[in-house]
Amino acid sequence: MDPYEEGLDSMNTGDTAWVLVSAALVLLMTPGLAFFYGGMTRAKAVLNMMMMSFGAIAVVGVLWVLYGYSMSFGTDVFAGLVGSPGEKFGLAGILSTGDDMPLAGTIPEIVFVGFQAVFAIITVALISGAIADRTKFSSWLVFAGLFATIVYFPVAHWVFDLNKDASGNGTGGWLGQGLGVIDFAGGTAVHINAGAAGLALALLLGKRKGFGKDPGHRPHNLPFVMLGAGLLWFGWFGFNAGSALGANGIAGYAWINTLAAPCAAVLGWLIIERIRDGHATSLGAASGAVAGLVAITPACTALTPVWSLVLGLLAGALCALAVGLKYRLNYDDSLDVVGVHLVGGIAGTLFIGLAADPGSPAAGQGLFYGGGLELLGKQTIGAGSVLIYSFVLSFVIGWAIKRTMGFRIPVQDEIEGIDVSEHAESAYEYGGVGVAGSFQPLHDQIQHSFNKKDPHRPGDAGSTARIQS
Amino acid sequence: MDPYEEGLDSMNTGDTAWVLVSAALVLLMTPGLAFFYGGMTRAKAVLNMMMMSFGAIAVVGVLWVLYGYSMSFGTDVFAGLVGSPGEKFGLAGILSTGDDMPLAGTIPEIVFVGFQAVFAIITVALISGAIADRTKFSSWLVFAGLFATIVYFPVAHWVFDLNKDASGNGTGGWLGQGLGVIDFAGGTAVHINAGAAGLALALLLGKRKGFGKDPGHRPHNLPFVMLGAGLLWFGWFGFNAGSALGANGIAGYAWINTLAAPCAAVLGWLIIERIRDGHATSLGAASGAVAGLVAITPACTALTPVWSLVLGLLAGALCALAVGLKYRLNYDDSLDVVGVHLVGGIAGTLFIGLAADPGSPAAGQGLFYGGGLELLGKQTIGAGSVLIYSFVLSFVIGWAIKRTMGFRIPVQDEIEGIDVSEHAESAYEYGGVGVAGSFQPLHDQIQHSFNKKDPHRPGDAGSTARIQS
Amino acid sequence: MDPYEEGLDSMNTGDTAWVLVSAALVLLMTPGLAFFYGGMTRAKAVLNMMMMSFGAIAVVGVLWVLYGYSMSFGTDVFAGLVGSPGEKFGLAGILSTGDDMPLAGTIPEIVFVGFQAVFAIITVALISGAIADRTKFSSWLVFAGLFATIVYFPVAHWVFDLNKDASGNGTGGWLGQGLGVIDFAGGTAVHINAGAAGLALALLLGKRKGFGKDPGHRPHNLPFVMLGAGLLWFGWFGFNAGSALGANGIAGYAWINTLAAPCAAVLGWLIIERIRDGHATSLGAASGAVAGLVAITPACTALTPVWSLVLGLLAGALCALAVGLKYRLNYDDSLDVVGVHLVGGIAGTLFIGLAADPGSPAAGQGLFYGGGLELLGKQTIGAGSVLIYSFVLSFVIGWAIKRTMGFRIPVQDEIEGIDVSEHAESAYEYGGVGVAGSFQPLHDQIQHSFNKKDPHRPGDAGSTARIQS
Repeated sequence: MDPYEEGLDSMNTGDTAWVLVSAALVLLMTPGLAFFYGGMTRAKAVLNMMMMSFGAIAVVGVLWVLYGYSMSFGTDVFAGLVGSPGEKFGLAGILSTGDDMPLAGTIPEIVFVGFQAVFAIITVALISGAIADRTKFSSWLVFAGLFATIVYFPVAHWVFDLNKDASGNGTGGWLGQGLGVIDFAGGTAVHINAGAAGLALALLLGKRKGFGKDPGHRPHNLPFVMLGAGLLWFGWFGFNAGSALGANGIAGYAWINTLAAPCAAVLGWLIIERIRDGHATSLGAASGAVAGLVAITPACTALTPVWSLVLGLLAGALCALAVGLKYRLNYDDSLDVVGVHLVGGIAGTLFIGLAADPGSPAAGQGLFYGGGLELLGKQTIGAGSVLIYSFVLSFVIGWAIKRTMGFRIPVQDEIEGIDVSEHAESAYEYGGVGVAGSFQPLHDQIQHSFNKKDPHRPGDAGSTARIQS
Repeated sequence: MDPYEEGLDSMNTGDTAWVLVSAALVLLMTPGLAFFYGGMTRAKAVLNMMMMSFGAIAVVGVLWVLYGYSMSFGTDVFAGLVGSPGEKFGLAGILSTGDDMPLAGTIPEIVFVGFQAVFAIITVALISGAIADRTKFSSWLVFAGLFATIVYFPVAHWVFDLNKDASGNGTGGWLGQGLGVIDFAGGTAVHINAGAAGLALALLLGKRKGFGKDPGHRPHNLPFVMLGAGLLWFGWFGFNAGSALGANGIAGYAWINTLAAPCAAVLGWLIIERIRDGHATSLGAASGAVAGLVAITPACTALTPVWSLVLGLLAGALCALAVGLKYRLNYDDSLDVVGVHLVGGIAGTLFIGLAADPGSPAAGQGLFYGGGLELLGKQTIGAGSVLIYSFVLSFVIGWAIKRTMGFRIPVQDEIEGIDVSEHAESAYEYGGVGVAGSFQPLHDQIQHSFNKKDPHRPGDAGSTARIQS
Repeated sequence: MDPYEEGLDSMNTGDTAWVLVSAALVLLMTPGLAFFYGGMTRAKAVLNMMMMSFGAIAVVGVLWVLYGYSMSFGTDVFAGLVGSPGEKFGLAGILSTGDDMPLAGTIPEIVFVGFQAVFAIITVALISGAIADRTKFSSWLVFAGLFATIVYFPVAHWVFDLNKDASGNGTGGWLGQGLGVIDFAGGTAVHINAGAAGLALALLLGKRKGFGKDPGHRPHNLPFVMLGAGLLWFGWFGFNAGSALGANGIAGYAWINTLAAPCAAVLGWLIIERIRDGHATSLGAASGAVAGLVAITPACTALTPVWSLVLGLLAGALCALAVGLKYRLNYDDSLDVVGVHLVGGIAGTLFIGLAADPGSPAAGQGLFYGGGLELLGKQTIGAGSVLIYSFVLSFVIGWAIKRTMGFRIPVQDEIEGIDVSEHAESAYEYGGVGVAGSFQPLHDQIQHSFNKKDPHRPGDAGSTARIQS
C-alpha cells in the first residue's frame, strides 16, 4: 500500500470505486467474525462474544477518526515508529472534496482513511476469541481502546505506511518502508498482532471453568460458524485485493490467491481431521478457510497461484494441528486466535521468504527462486518484532486493567452464563416453537403438492398455544 | 443527488461501478432488515415479520419498474409535487445502451433507476416493524403498493429530484430542488417517512395482546438482530456513499461519516442503558448502530467527521430514551420504528441546521457556523412536511384497508402465532437436535486434540434416533 | 461475455472494479446457497448439506486454478467442444501485471479468471440440493471434481467462450460463439447443467427414508432459507450484471432485470400457493425469488424490464407447480434442484426465443418481435444439448462412484442423522438456553423502559445454572 504519491497522480474513479467497496467489505468482516466466534461459544455466552466485536467497532471507529489515522499515517515522529497523533486530529486537513482534495495515490485520501479504519477495527475484534465466556465487557472496551492506541496504530505505521519524501527517501514505517518486509495486507500488523495479543490475554485471564473437559465448551451453533466463515471470506477479497488501492491487475492477482489458498487450506485441514479423528467436520472446513485466508494475507501479491495452493494446503494442515497446542500447553485460547491467526500469520509471512516469485507484483525473491536467505531474514524480523511488541504491550495493558478495574467476571457468573450476568440478556427464547417432538407445524415442503386445501388443523395450532400461553 | 445534467457529462465507468454496487448493497438491506426485525419478534411470528420485508421487495419492485420511477423522477407535473407516472412507464425510453444511452450525471440512467428502486423498497419494508405479530399478510401487500404509490413515490420526487432545466431553473421536487432542504440520502424521504407511517399503522391496528407485560414479547433470537444490524450497516455504505452517484471524494466523505456516527451512537445507547438499567445489551448495541445510521443519513455530506461523532452520540442516547415512549404514550410501535427511524431521522435532519459546515460537500451553513436560523428553518419544514404528509396519508390508506379487507388477524391467531395462521408454517423444527441436555454430539472443539480415534459412539447416536423417530 | 478482444482495448479501472466486486459477490452465493439448502434440511442433516457447498468451493477452486480455466477458456481443441487443459496450467502465462498484462476485453485476464472461477463453483454446489441427507461426503468431493472436469469446464467453453480470431471467425464454444445461442449469464451452463446433474444423482441415489410422508422432512430453519435467498439475490447482481464484464449500460440493463424478474416471481409463486394451499409461505417467497433469478439469468440482457416481469411471474408460478412433480414421478430431488433450476433455467432460455427484443443489448429477435422460430430453435438446441450432456455424463460419473467407493450412507446413519455419522458433529447445542418455558432471561424490549434498576434476579439466573450444570 503506497498512498503517498501526492501530486504524481490524479484521482481515478475506478480505483476509488474499488476501495470504497473494499472498505465496506472489510467492515462486514467484523460482524462476520462475531458469528464465526459466536457460533463456537456456548448458547449462554454468544451475545457477549458478539458484543466484543461490536464494541470493538464502536471504540476503535471513534478513536480512528479522532487520532488513530494520524498515529498510523501521519508524519513520522521518530525512526518509523509512530505518526504524529495531532497532525490530522479529527481528520482535519483532508476533508476537502474540491480541487484541493488530498489524494492517496489515485484515490481521495478520505477513502484511504475509511479503508484503513476497518483494518484497525477487525484487528482488535480478532483478539476477543481468546478470552471467550469470561471477560468483563467494560474492561474489554477499555482494553480495545488502549490496545488500538498503544499497539495497533503504531504497528500499522511500521508496516503499512510506505511514505516517501520528494526525493524518494522513505519517511514511513520501519518495517514496510525501511526494512522492506513484504506484508501486503496484514499478516504481521493484523494477524500476528492479534494472535500475540490473544495469547497474552489468555494467559492473563486464565482458563474457563471446565476447560479441556468433554463436554465442556462445544460450539452451540455450527451454522453460525459457517455463516461467519462465509462472510469473512467474502469480506477478505476487499481486505486483500482492496489493499492494491486500485482496480488493476495487482488487485486481480491478490483476488485469485485469496480464492486459491483458502480452497487448498480447507482440504488441508479436512485431510488432517480425517486421518487423525476419522471425520471431516464443518468446524474444520470453516476454520481451514480462515487459516488459508490468514496465511495468504501477507503473501497474496508475492506468490504465484500454484504456490498459493501449496501455502494454503500447508497452512490448513498446520493450523489443524496447532489448535490442539492449547491443551498440551494448558492455556485457554478459547476460540483459537493463537492456533489460527498467530500460527497462520507466521506461516504466511515466512513462506514469502521461501517462495516469493520475483515476477509477482511484490517482486520479492524467495529462497526457492534463488534469493537466498535475505528475504526470509527480513520476514522473520517483521514477524518477530510485531509478535514481541504486541505480546509484551498487550500483557502490560491487560495486567493494568486486571489490577485496577478487573478483567474477569466472577466464576459463578461464568457458570450461569455471561450473557445474563454482563448483559442481562439471553440469546434465544424459542418459547416452545420447533422444540417439542409433538409440535407439528402445518406446512412443509411436501405440502407443496399434497395438500390442496386449507391445511389449518385445529389440533396442531392448539399444541402451539398450549406450550406458549 | 442530481442525475439530470444530461449532455453535460459523458459516462464514467468508475462512477457506474460504484452505483451498481451500491444498488446491490441497498437491496441487501431489506433482507438485513428482515433479520433485524425478525430476531426481535417471538419465535412464532418471525416468518410473518420476514415476509413483510420480502413482500415489500416484490410489490414495490414491480411497481417501480412500471410507474414508480416515472412518478419519482419523471417530468414534474405540478409545483414539484409529483412526476408524470406515464412518462417512462415500464422504463420505456431509457433502455438504450448504445450511443443514445440516456445518462443521469455520469452514469447510465438505467443504473440510477436501479439505485433508486431499492430506496423505495426499504422505506416500505421499514414500516412493518411497527405492526409485528398481528397484520394480515394480504392487507400488508395492498398497503405496501398503495403507500408506495401515494406516499413514497411523490415524497421521493419532493426530496430527491434535483432536476434543473437548461437555463438552470429548478424543475424537480419542491423540498430538495425548490426549498434547498439538505437531505443527502433520505432522512426525510426514507426514515421520517417510514417512521410516521409506522406510527399511523400502530395506532390503527392497536396493541398486541400482552403489550407491555413482562415476559410478553421478548426477542426470540438476538444473534439474528445482530446479523441484521451488521447487514444493514454494510448496505448503508451503499445507501449513503452511493448517493454521491459517483466514486469520488464526496462518496468518501459520506463513507467515513457512515462509519463514525453509528460507532458513536452504539456508545451513546450503551451508556444510557448502563446508567438506567445497569447493563449494556446486545439489543442496545444493534439498535444504537441503526439509530446512528438513521441520523447520519441526511447529514453524511453536511457534517465534519467530528460533528458526525457528536450527532451519533446524541442520536444513540436520544433513541435509547425514545423507545420507551410507546409504553408511556400507550401505542404499540412493536419494534421501535418510531423510536429509531422517526426520532433518529428528525434528529439528523434538524442537526444539519445546527452544525452544517460550509466547507463540507453539502455546503450548508448551520447555526454553529454563523448561518443563523435559516437552514434550521428549512430543515424543520422538510422534516415536518414529510412527517405530516406520510402520517395522514398512511392513516387514510390504512383506515380504508381496515374498513374493507381488514388489517389485523383475529386475536386467537395472534396467540397461537401468526406464522401458523397466516403462512401455515413454523420457523423452526429442531426435532430434538441440540435441545436435550442428555444429547451429546460426538464432536467438539476439544476433540481436535483429544480424540485420535473414530469417535462414533453408539450411545450418543442412539439418543438422536430415539428423539426423532 | 466476450473477453477476447485483446489488443483492441486498454484496461479500464471502472470495468475492472465492477468485475472484481462481482466475482466476490458470486463467491458469496455459495455460502448463501449453503443456508438456502441447509435451512430446508432437518436439523440433523444441516451441516452435511452446508459441507457439500463448502466442499465444492474447495475442490473446484483448486481445479480451476490448475486446469479448469484452461479447459473452459483455453484455445479450442476441437469444434468448440473444449479448451486445451495444459495451455494455461496453474494460470501460467497470464500473471503479469506489468505492461504486458493480458487483458480480457477491458479488464485484466486474471480478474476474468476469478469471475469465472466462482461460476464453476456454484454450479457444482447447486447439484447437492438433490441428494440431501444421504450422501457420503468423500464421494461428493470426488463427484465434484469429476463433474467439474468432465461436465462443467467443457460446457462453460461451449456457452461462455466467445473468442474470435483476428479476422473475426469464431474460435470459441459451439453453442455461444458457433450457433449464437443467447445465454448471458448461465441459464444453460449453470442452471440447466446443475438441474440435469441433480436429476441424475437423485435417480442414482434413490429416495430418502420417509420421502413423501408427512411429517418427514420439514425445513428445520426457515429463517436460514430466507437468509440464503437474500444472500443469493444480492450475489446474483454480480452474477448477471457482472457478466457484462464492465460497468456500463449493459450491466445496468442486466441489473434492473435481475431486480424485476424475481420480484414478479415471488408474487407468481405466492399466488399459486394461495390458490392451491390457502396460504402464502415464506418457503414459497424464498423459492420464488430464486426461481425468478434462475429464469432471468440467460435473459437479463435480452428482455425489456416489462417482459422480465412477465417471465418472472410465469417462472415463479411454473416452478411452484413443478416442485410437486417429484412426488408424482417418485424421484427424490430433495430440495428441488430440478423443480427450480432445471425448470427455471429451461423457462428462461426458451422465453428468449419468444420475447427477445432486438433493441436490447443481446439484440436477439424473438417470435413476438417478428423473428419467427429461428431464435427459439437455437435456444432449444442450447437447452437440450446441455441437458442431455449433463444428465448422461453425471449419471455415468455417479454410477462409477456408486460402484466403486459407494455414494450413499447406510440407512441407519440416515435415520440417526448424517451430521453425526459423516462429520461427528451436531449443528446445535443449546444446553437449555431459550428452550424451557420456565426459563426467563432478564432482559427484553420491555425493559428498555420498565426496569430502571439492576435487573439481576437470582431466581432466573438459578434456573439457567440448574439446566446447564
